[in-house]
Amino acid sequence: MSNVRTLDREEPHYFGAGPAILPTSVLQEAAYDLVSYLNEGLGVGEISHRSKPAMQIIDDTKANLAKLLDIPDTHETFFMQGGGTTGFSSIPYNLIANYAKKTGKVGRAAYAVTGSWSKKAAEEAERLGFDVDVVVNTKDIKFSDIPPYSEWKPIAENTSYLFVCDNETVDGNEFNDIPGPEYLPEGVELVADLSSNILSRKVDVSKYGLIMAGAQKNIGLAGLTIYIIKKSLLEQASDADLKALGVPLVPIAYQYPIVVKNNSAYNTIPIFTAHILKLVTGKLLEEGGLAKIQATDEKKASILYAALAKFPEFYILPVKNPRVRSKMNVVFRLPSAELDDQFVKEASAKGLNGLKGHRSVGGIRASMYNAVTLESVELLVKFVEEFGKTHA
Amino acid sequence: MSNVRTLDREEPHYFGAGPAILPTSVLQEAAYDLVSYLNEGLGVGEISHRSKPAMQIIDDTKANLAKLLDIPDTHETFFMQGGGTTGFSSIPYNLIANYAKKTGKVGRAAYAVTGSWSKKAAEEAERLGFDVDVVVNTKDIKFSDIPPYSEWKPIAENTSYLFVCDNETVDGNEFNDIPGPEYLPEGVELVADLSSNILSRKVDVSKYGLIMAGAQKNIGLAGLTIYIIKKSLLEQASDADLKALGVPLVPIAYQYPIVVKNNSAYNTIPIFTAHILKLVTGKLLEEGGLAKIQATDEKKASILYAALAKFPEFYILPVKNPRVRSKMNVVFRLPSAELDDQFVKEASAKGLNGLKGHRSVGGIRASMYNAVTLESVELLVKFVEEFGKTHA
Repeated sequence: MSNVRTLDREEPHYFGAGPAILPTSVLQEAAYDLVSYLNEGLGVGEISHRSKPAMQIIDDTKANLAKLLDIPDTHETFFMQGGGTTGFSSIPYNLIANYAKKTGKVGRAAYAVTGSWSKKAAEEAERLGFDVDVVVNTKDIKFSDIPPYSEWKPIAENTSYLFVCDNETVDGNEFNDIPGPEYLPEGVELVADLSSNILSRKVDVSKYGLIMAGAQKNIGLAGLTIYIIKKSLLEQASDADLKALGVPLVPIAYQYPIVVKNNSAYNTIPIFTAHILKLVTGKLLEEGGLAKIQATDEKKASILYAALAKFPEFYILPVKNPRVRSKMNVVFRLPSAELDDQFVKEASAKGLNGLKGHRSVGGIRASMYNAVTLESVELLVKFVEEFGKTHA
Repeated sequence: MSNVRTLDREEPHYFGAGPAILPTSVLQEAAYDLVSYLNEGLGVGEISHRSKPAMQIIDDTKANLAKLLDIPDTHETFFMQGGGTTGFSSIPYNLIANYAKKTGKVGRAAYAVTGSWSKKAAEEAERLGFDVDVVVNTKDIKFSDIPPYSEWKPIAENTSYLFVCDNETVDGNEFNDIPGPEYLPEGVELVADLSSNILSRKVDVSKYGLIMAGAQKNIGLAGLTIYIIKKSLLEQASDADLKALGVPLVPIAYQYPIVVKNNSAYNTIPIFTAHILKLVTGKLLEEGGLAKIQATDEKKASILYAALAKFPEFYILPVKNPRVRSKMNVVFRLPSAELDDQFVKEASAKGLNGLKGHRSVGGIRASMYNAVTLESVELLVKFVEEFGKTHA
């Protein structure tokens, strides 16, 4: 390595599941801003989280997300520190507090367990003392399919919300529709974890009570989680009323109304990380918004799945139903663990990195978030075909 | 501004209370690493939080902190997302779960309310349903002094811990000793929030059950909080036992034993932010460690307080007892709000920024964290004297 450092880099071909790669141009701009931002005389990570330029970053990011996702006025966007785990822990406290406000009752929480993350979310809500109904659980079939809603258990009386994880990063499955009124009774809110597929396609935000998404896959660095909530859900019963009902109280940094009231600056928002969100969302808008991204993401997934399908005995896909295969995390394994290792090693020798599967399931995982270019995926496709021809 | 950007900057003279300034050399190195780190082909924010280089960053930061603070083997260091608020919310859950494990009983929590942050911490523990005893409360004297321990209420039976905020950022007071056995009964753990003065001086870590400190003042960017805990306190009663006792359960991302077991990589540690911690602590070690820092920080505080003391009717210090005046956050006000504003404005014209007091108390606040150089403070001292001569 030369002693003279620059902000240039060779474009990486990286398929890690997250933290994920970010556009080089964003990182370069953020690098300059880290040292010196606007005319502040300070770097962007050094300014006060309550200063005007910090508030501008938060407001600009919210505006970018509103444009990209066409967020209606009925919904509010906010940011909290944390990742998916903070996200799913915070949900039952806040939603059940809202249900108590609306009805004076303790609400139930319905969970669809369709992979590792929704499983964790359901277990956490139950552990914390909430009344959880698992309405579908595909663990016995190793999360290899998502049954139609007609086969799910009916939603119980007094249910506040249904939680789904729209894309299961570890297991490689993805909902390709969302439950409508044929399954979800009126008044039961749809709550979705979109951590690993937010901004990969259009979604109709108006149908969701709450969208939660960690930033570190499609949008930015680890350290921030995005929430888009129906404003009416920010109403919560008082602490005294919740105590009387026996509902656990939420730690203050997780309390959505407080965070919203402070324009996400509560608990010292990491403003450098927010700035990266702003740059990434701004770039996505400049490049044509979600229609453009969605087309590219669909193309990336379709060419990789097509290449794998050429060697169906060799590249084994655990998600059997093509309808629910993830466009973000393509999970497969080879006939032996040795071949898995060889695949990862040879791919790496060709500059294709981050392909090892999650430690809990093994095999191979190619994550193709927004910053993974079509060119990277084309190189991977070529390698998949070559490796298949040689070893299948 | 020129169109050609560089990673150079004029050294700022910035006295903001946090997020605070960082050494320019650290920001420059981090800027390069953001785009390209080691030979990974990726930036440091893009690598997996469970990868070897990420674990190395965490381990190196822990090792640096162990050297700087002389952390004994009885204690464990870990990191969580969040700031002071996350920190003080997480404390009662974890400490009371440990007390239940040790004794089978529900422990009480003692809080010293000596400023805005300890007040919030006590209120939060009580709100969450813990049994809180406020053993001293100086709100009525506007946090202008900290009475000797002999005047505090005695610690109640069955108390798990005493919480103190060692330096109150908003109010400008600082403990200059810690309660010893003459006040703290054996077995009651000392828990301290050192968010705004960690690494400003030597502390005897062995005396603390738990030290908690947000990174964004003396150590790094917002987004990470440092915990140094006595290892024996990581033992916790089971969820079932806690439920039976009626002790609230902690959200999983706040659960210290889980975080430690995962070497702080739980809930996706923001690895770029951790990298900054590593660089800052490494630089402090290179420059001579805490003895050196302490001498500089004491000099900075003494020259500023001396300058203010030259105009005692003009620069009014709310903290009356010199023994408990903060070396980190020097709080004062002028005879009128107009003069406060003029002071801030004229200082800013001389390149001295970030001097406005906290919105809840007004006046002036000069925060002098580690990255604020003696040169910056000397310029401020000069300005304080000039302004005093002109207007007093």
